[in-house]
Amino acid sequence: MNKKGLLLVLSGPSGCGKGTVLKELLATEENIFLSVSATTRSPRPGEENGTHYFFLSKEEFEGEIARDGMLEHACYCGNYYGTPKKPVFERCEKGQHVILEIEVQGAKQVINSQPEAVSIFIMPPSLAELERRLVDRQTEDEETVRRRLATAVEEMKQAKDYDYIVVNNTVAEAVKDIAAIIRAEQNRTCRMAEMIQDN
Amino acid sequence: MNKKGLLLVLSGPSGCGKGTVLKELLATEENIFLSVSATTRSPRPGEENGTHYFFLSKEEFEGEIARDGMLEHACYCGNYYGTPKKPVFERCEKGQHVILEIEVQGAKQVINSQPEAVSIFIMPPSLAELERRLVDRQTEDEETVRRRLATAVEEMKQAKDYDYIVVNNTVAEAVKDIAAIIRAEQNRTCRMAEMIQDN
Repeated sequence: MNKKGLLLVLSGPSGCGKGTVLKELLATEENIFLSVSATTRSPRPGEENGTHYFFLSKEEFEGEIARDGMLEHACYCGNYYGTPKKPVFERCEKGQHVILEIEVQGAKQVINSQPEAVSIFIMPPSLAELERRLVDRQTEDEETVRRRLATAVEEMKQAKDYDYIVVNNTVAEAVKDIAAIIRAEQNRTCRMAEMIQDN
Repeated sequence: MNKKGLLLVLSGPSGCGKGTVLKELLATEENIFLSVSATTRSPRPGEENGTHYFFLSKEEFEGEIARDGMLEHACYCGNYYGTPKKPVFERCEKGQHVILEIEVQGAKQVINSQPEAVSIFIMPPSLAELERRLVDRQTEDEETVRRRLATAVEEMKQAKDYDYIVVNNTVAEAVKDIAAIIRAEQNRTCRMAEMIQDN
């Protein structure tokens, strides 16, 4: 029995604690890998090709789009960002689970084009708590916090399009929720077809 | 946030180890309860009303069917067996998860009438292993083992109608699978509507 790995889509508003949850999940669970995005922006000091991003030229990126090589992509501030299909699908074929940590617009593209993808939206416990977390960072001024909160409210409206919602009350519980989702999804009848045929 | 408990339907062929898995699940997981069936057959020595079965008269049982009080029911050897709705729904309303351990025909009735039910089919690792387990019981003659195997093959064809398939390779892993399904299902977006509205 050589089972395909899961394609997981993970989104959540800025300040929901997504990054911490993901880091803990990757540290505690086996066989889960974070997808590496591609971008046309220049590498920053310390960023390595294939680790932090796949750094592509504009021509290369547009070539990938043209030959349907991107799972999702978008353009921000004049640069392309996206998820190349090949490394993701190769891992899944090997039975490894791949997580795409992407924003809601990119997630929508993947959810629509890959019906077998498992999508998870991470929620802050409440908007009040989200504001507290954004303020606590102390890296942003009041105006930025307000803008991020408004964006978060908009993004949270997209949560209904995801398969699962995980509320990040505590990192440990949120990680357990995602680990349970990954375990449960492997037992979905649609993924157990070979069991039905074999018997 | 007062969440409803899950209505779980669990089936599997005779000899798949369902009983052992269920016993271990109830012993290790909290807030999960086994539904008590109703029957018109007479109590056996030691059987208590409300614990092993709800013992009803034929008139009472038919009255329940008539007023749509049964989640599922069937007639075997001249006796009715079934699952009364009321105690199941009352527990679910209190946020408790209820497991119905029922055979495939009853399960089909619940799956069709309760779209929110979560259905799990327990599979033996293989037919050869199922045969070994049935023979190992040493309580059945060859003919009975052969008949049970034939029934198992027929029942396993129904597995495709369940939401999940759990292969009972080991009891510990099967219990972890079911616990993960219960945890994951609570995070399904359709069950998190209040999170979307609250934010």
